[in-house]
Amino acid sequence: MSIEWIAADWGTSHLRVWAMQGGNVLDQAQSDKGMGKLPKDGFQNALLELIDDWLGDAPVDVVACGMVGARQGWVEAPYSAVPTAPVPETPIRVPNTDPRIRAFVVPGLKQAAPPDVMRGEETQIAGFLSGRKNWDGVICLPGTHTKWVQVSADEVVSFRTFMTGEMFSLLSEQSVLRHSVSDGWDQDAFAEATADTLSKPEQMAARLFGLRASDLLNADDPGAARARLSGYLIGAELAATRPYWLGQQIAIIGADNLSKIYAHALKQQGAFAEIANNTQATLEGLRQARNRTRQTA
Amino acid sequence: MSIEWIAADWGTSHLRVWAMQGGNVLDQAQSDKGMGKLPKDGFQNALLELIDDWLGDAPVDVVACGMVGARQGWVEAPYSAVPTAPVPETPIRVPNTDPRIRAFVVPGLKQAAPPDVMRGEETQIAGFLSGRKNWDGVICLPGTHTKWVQVSADEVVSFRTFMTGEMFSLLSEQSVLRHSVSDGWDQDAFAEATADTLSKPEQMAARLFGLRASDLLNADDPGAARARLSGYLIGAELAATRPYWLGQQIAIIGADNLSKIYAHALKQQGAFAEIANNTQATLEGLRQARNRTRQTA
Repeated sequence: MSIEWIAADWGTSHLRVWAMQGGNVLDQAQSDKGMGKLPKDGFQNALLELIDDWLGDAPVDVVACGMVGARQGWVEAPYSAVPTAPVPETPIRVPNTDPRIRAFVVPGLKQAAPPDVMRGEETQIAGFLSGRKNWDGVICLPGTHTKWVQVSADEVVSFRTFMTGEMFSLLSEQSVLRHSVSDGWDQDAFAEATADTLSKPEQMAARLFGLRASDLLNADDPGAARARLSGYLIGAELAATRPYWLGQQIAIIGADNLSKIYAHALKQQGAFAEIANNTQATLEGLRQARNRTRQTA
Repeated sequence: MSIEWIAADWGTSHLRVWAMQGGNVLDQAQSDKGMGKLPKDGFQNALLELIDDWLGDAPVDVVACGMVGARQGWVEAPYSAVPTAPVPETPIRVPNTDPRIRAFVVPGLKQAAPPDVMRGEETQIAGFLSGRKNWDGVICLPGTHTKWVQVSADEVVSFRTFMTGEMFSLLSEQSVLRHSVSDGWDQDAFAEATADTLSKPEQMAARLFGLRASDLLNADDPGAARARLSGYLIGAELAATRPYWLGQQIAIIGADNLSKIYAHALKQQGAFAEIANNTQATLEGLRQARNRTRQTA
């Protein structure tokens, strides 16, 4: 097995690595040693734990994207300001690493007004746009902090971040709603709830406690309550992003299940979205970032 | 000291008791032994710990309101359905208590459509309305789960619950915003944020992450971020409750600081609210509930 380089997606909660030969995956590994759990001097060991078997005598490039580039990360990779190509800068070299690796971190993007930041998604966007010359439209990257990104002429023009995923976790696991929301899913309940807050976003705040009250009074199906909670939050997000997606070409890059949920919600509104391959976008974006490091090396 | 009866406000997180002679307070005590922390057989001891010194040979009435009457509480006190007087039923007697007390729990209220419930606020409403014959208007009871209550002809006509307080706690203490929100308050930032989501409620979801991003990019004042977070959430609540409060007589019953924040936000919208004394409303409501137990005893 001849490993050329190593790709790393290093977020707040997880680290995923791939042993690469050009654009082909030879091996992969992951751990829960995300940026949020590591001290400043813990990053290299967390990485080596996963890739040690892949290393030989010659130094191998490791190219990482995500929160690993935050101030509290391995090395701070300053943001590039939009409008800009998604990965306009050469990734930042991590100083003083183990001699068997040369590690790089991809810079994130920032927007001055309204203030916003991203780390990691810029790499997926670069990967998605590769091979789609002159793709204009909006990219939705659902997750803990969902991003909506306006793309034109191969540049990120603007973007907005929504805490929808984090709010769903907090409300379903830690609020009073945890007693009424459990596993399961009811697509009709989701569709109804999404349409409800999309058309009347000011009612979102009024709907949430209703999930608990309705359960107490009517002993509701907790799977339906889960779908409704998700629908209320995603409906509010779609109401806020309507100027982004209305009449635009739309792509979704994210976990399979969540991408389908967003695509369903958009389809209800007559908007059709392409679901792109998440991992493929990440790896292609990291491959491009690596090519930059080689041009300047 | 001649104690006639004991008033108890027993919520999810706290227990407060008052030694009463008619409507006068002779002594008071409190603990953090709220309903949420007690097993089914732990209620009597949690109460006796606070009131033991007040008890003599003759049995004393203890009248309690709040989550103590939930299914997981000391005794389940079934809800009364609106429209109804706030305390239409005789409080439920707790069976098999220590012979030195006769304990009663005030039933809550329920609403079928939209589904909603309350426990504790009905007692404060009864207390507030006492001595205000034919008070028509809307009562706001801010807290973890803020209630907006429409009152007419001495009856609760309808009500809605908002998880604003709980969402503020979760977002400011447990979400990514915890890094950017700390102590302090900026009234101008609050006013601006409230007006913002009140006029554009669909933007609430878009605003939240902006607090984090703005801090990262501009090193904002964390006290201003706290006021903005509160303003966004309360603005969304006021947008949803506009049909309740617009052009109505308004009273606020709640903790002093929070009541003032709500009154400020309403005043910005040209709506003037009376801030009622929280404890006085609770004690007067419990006194009325106790009178019912004596009429039927």
